[in-house]
Amino acid sequence: MVGGLSAAKLLKSSGLNPVVLEARDRVGGRTFTVRNKETKWVDLGGAYVGPTQNRLLRLAKEYGIQTYKVNEKENLVHYANGKSYPFKGSFPPMWNPIVLMDFNNLFRTMDEMGKEIPKEAPWKAPHAEEWDKMTMQQLFEKVCWTSTVRRFATLFVNVNVTSEPHEVSALWFLWYVKQCGGTMRIFSTTNGGQERKFAGGSGQISECMAKELGERVKLESPVYRIDQTGDVVVVETVNKQTYTARYVIVATPPAMNLKMHFSPELPPLRNQLINRVPMGSVIKCMVYYKENFWRKKGYCGSMVIEEEGAPIGLTLDDTKPDGSVPAIMGFILARKCRKLCDLSKEERLRKICEIYSKVLGSEEALHPVHYEEKNWCEEEYSGGCYTAYFPPGILTQFGRVLREPVGRLYFAGTETATEWSGYMEGAVQAGERAAREVLCAMGKIHQSQIWQSEPECKEVPALPFVTTFWERNTPSVGGFLKLVGVSTFLSAAAAAGLVAYKKGLLPQS
Amino acid sequence: MVGGLSAAKLLKSSGLNPVVLEARDRVGGRTFTVRNKETKWVDLGGAYVGPTQNRLLRLAKEYGIQTYKVNEKENLVHYANGKSYPFKGSFPPMWNPIVLMDFNNLFRTMDEMGKEIPKEAPWKAPHAEEWDKMTMQQLFEKVCWTSTVRRFATLFVNVNVTSEPHEVSALWFLWYVKQCGGTMRIFSTTNGGQERKFAGGSGQISECMAKELGERVKLESPVYRIDQTGDVVVVETVNKQTYTARYVIVATPPAMNLKMHFSPELPPLRNQLINRVPMGSVIKCMVYYKENFWRKKGYCGSMVIEEEGAPIGLTLDDTKPDGSVPAIMGFILARKCRKLCDLSKEERLRKICEIYSKVLGSEEALHPVHYEEKNWCEEEYSGGCYTAYFPPGILTQFGRVLREPVGRLYFAGTETATEWSGYMEGAVQAGERAAREVLCAMGKIHQSQIWQSEPECKEVPALPFVTTFWERNTPSVGGFLKLVGVSTFLSAAAAAGLVAYKKGLLPQS
Repeated sequence: MVGGLSAAKLLKSSGLNPVVLEARDRVGGRTFTVRNKETKWVDLGGAYVGPTQNRLLRLAKEYGIQTYKVNEKENLVHYANGKSYPFKGSFPPMWNPIVLMDFNNLFRTMDEMGKEIPKEAPWKAPHAEEWDKMTMQQLFEKVCWTSTVRRFATLFVNVNVTSEPHEVSALWFLWYVKQCGGTMRIFSTTNGGQERKFAGGSGQISECMAKELGERVKLESPVYRIDQTGDVVVVETVNKQTYTARYVIVATPPAMNLKMHFSPELPPLRNQLINRVPMGSVIKCMVYYKENFWRKKGYCGSMVIEEEGAPIGLTLDDTKPDGSVPAIMGFILARKCRKLCDLSKEERLRKICEIYSKVLGSEEALHPVHYEEKNWCEEEYSGGCYTAYFPPGILTQFGRVLREPVGRLYFAGTETATEWSGYMEGAVQAGERAAREVLCAMGKIHQSQIWQSEPECKEVPALPFVTTFWERNTPSVGGFLKLVGVSTFLSAAAAAGLVAYKKGLLPQS
Repeated sequence: MVGGLSAAKLLKSSGLNPVVLEARDRVGGRTFTVRNKETKWVDLGGAYVGPTQNRLLRLAKEYGIQTYKVNEKENLVHYANGKSYPFKGSFPPMWNPIVLMDFNNLFRTMDEMGKEIPKEAPWKAPHAEEWDKMTMQQLFEKVCWTSTVRRFATLFVNVNVTSEPHEVSALWFLWYVKQCGGTMRIFSTTNGGQERKFAGGSGQISECMAKELGERVKLESPVYRIDQTGDVVVVETVNKQTYTARYVIVATPPAMNLKMHFSPELPPLRNQLINRVPMGSVIKCMVYYKENFWRKKGYCGSMVIEEEGAPIGLTLDDTKPDGSVPAIMGFILARKCRKLCDLSKEERLRKICEIYSKVLGSEEALHPVHYEEKNWCEEEYSGGCYTAYFPPGILTQFGRVLREPVGRLYFAGTETATEWSGYMEGAVQAGERAAREVLCAMGKIHQSQIWQSEPECKEVPALPFVTTFWERNTPSVGGFLKLVGVSTFLSAAAAAGLVAYKKGLLPQS
């Protein structure tokens, strides 16, 4: 509901009279900041913000909410094949030259394919149909030569979209990464999507907007009916209230449109779209410790964990910026989330501490002082987190109706965004765009003003990701083998020639 | 709602006091019989019944509803590469021996894989994970050698599950075909799922059950809230009625559970399942003619149309059993359905008549006297037709909660069946099983009585499909090429031996 609130905020500041109907007993939707004595505050949902997320940064600045950098001073750790490898940078380094070549080629390929995909209309990409028929797993099978890279690629999908490579359309995933700014921007902490957090929690953004909107925000008001057969739109809520409006912005994930009964029925493609875009699966887990023991061991708290038996795939330091409340944030992702859903909270904590202990090589990891977790799969009004994914075949067939208005209904929600869709930034972009669609429908602004770009936040500038000559030009493993094949042939031929020459079989003029 | 009604019927006959809440202003759900002077009656939704669908046949018999055979006396037509090929039998014959081998191998392979899949728990198949990660398109790419067979295989998926091969999990589709009795049973008219129709329309089944239930059936009562936090379950409807019950059977497609707001929330896996199982896409189209011109030309009215530009993929004669109201029923399937959604009814009719005219080689096809169609994608309370499909990865991760009760909620709907799931037969099986689950929960029957098999309907016996020695033993194209390779090698070796012998290079003892 960052999207719904930012839409209402813009409408109100334009002199209109919006009401926000919130299903839950709190604002924030997929962001959720909880305060208690053990944690001071903790973000159980969306938390991170980074360069190029300028709309969100603008809102935060307006409300005086500070950001701080997620700790990445010490080493990150990559855990694979039962061993920990400390590293610096965005991605774990690969040491085997064949693996390195394969890794470099895969990420370069994903970014290059992304360049072909229009962020506002991925279904118009030149190879849209072909790529949409493929799952990411199929793409990995085509592009990757080594199982090491294929395994890491699986984690890359798990972490970014809380689903499995065989579940998602390649076209959709490549679009998703592209509209976040590419593989480096989406996955990086420093200079990427996870660079910062909000001091006091991300929930404050929604809370401040709600405060500004005051009585206009109605909590515990799940909408179950939208009737636009009359002169005004009639909206009914489960808590038995009826609202009328000239326009309605639906700022839920697409699948949550199904919670509402529509008169008249939605058009056929939208009616089908909304049962085709599932929400990802994730449990966000924060483990609290007495001391920040990992930093003492030279680890920053970021772990990239490749181990089928481990619940967690990725961690980040979640200690407060002043060094208090030492904690590690970790995600239980996709297949692992579904597997570990049935365990008790205590059992999950135990499993998590065990892997942290192994990865960090520390007994202290086994002795947490507190634990917070949030299984987003159980949320009726989110359906999952972080965002909706598109299974194969859906984006090309149904994508075009994703934000197409239906009568006086307009669609927001981060899924309808074209920059950082799936993130808080996307929710703000979508909410403000939908608000301007309404303003345009009312004749208050021109159509050309609906989509607006956002100036860069000076305090959080985006640095370019510089690729090296080597990264740009190293061949893929396939290319390399061809090259080796040719040169082997050439050297063999040369050697043969030499032998022939020596044996006097060639004419010596 | 065949399922909901058959559940209520069984509960009532067991002395209970059920109420049926129907969202629409009619009973029948995905079956829908319309009466008018042009058609007498027409089934706009589920219509067919055949051998092994014994529960549905039992209900029909009880209500004195007769069945009749769909006309298949004359030739069927297979239209491919712009030409019509008349044929007899279930599948179009293939004339090229390589294609025939490939075709035979594909359908044999699908049936053999099906044998490994338990119909009541496909997620327990020995290769469940591997097959669930694959789409049917991937399976076709692995198994098929010829584009002719791959194209026909696409149509086979389109026709059976109104979705595309790249959209569906291979495990799910193979399970679906298996639980209908295999590739022959599911696709055949004679001796298969499309053998018969109900005289007067399939809608009568639901209408008769509704009549029997009388005042217990409440129309125009979409459920938007189910609260089982108290001693009884409280159910609220959009038309502002409140019902209380000891138990509730939810007999909607899984995705339609999202139309309801639950207290307490559904468990995480069910909450996610219901946004992961989309409904297929189909427009059912009946074209009416003055005369039954196709029969005069020696065609029965069944057409299997492979042509990207043609709206229709499969037709069947829809003339009344007494020869009156000549008509052809055709399906606009999956990708074509989404493409042709936006056309006007008239434009669709014109396109349909054009292809019928080409396939049947008849000018008369261009002059319909009436047209009926139903686009199931626009139905808010079905979400699509015929049934839900499982995209890759979902059946193994979420299948086990498909019919797992949640407190006092039990789940029916054809998607939860284990025989003819997706059909009216499956709806009856599921409805009666859910009713018996409730009876069991009330202590009225033993757990072992919940699942019951059904004796065969004597009037509609199932004949076995006999495979020939050739069909069972012909190799795949791959196997054939190996065989040819070996025999080529052997004959080459033999020939070489002969030459060597003749030239005196071998010892002649």
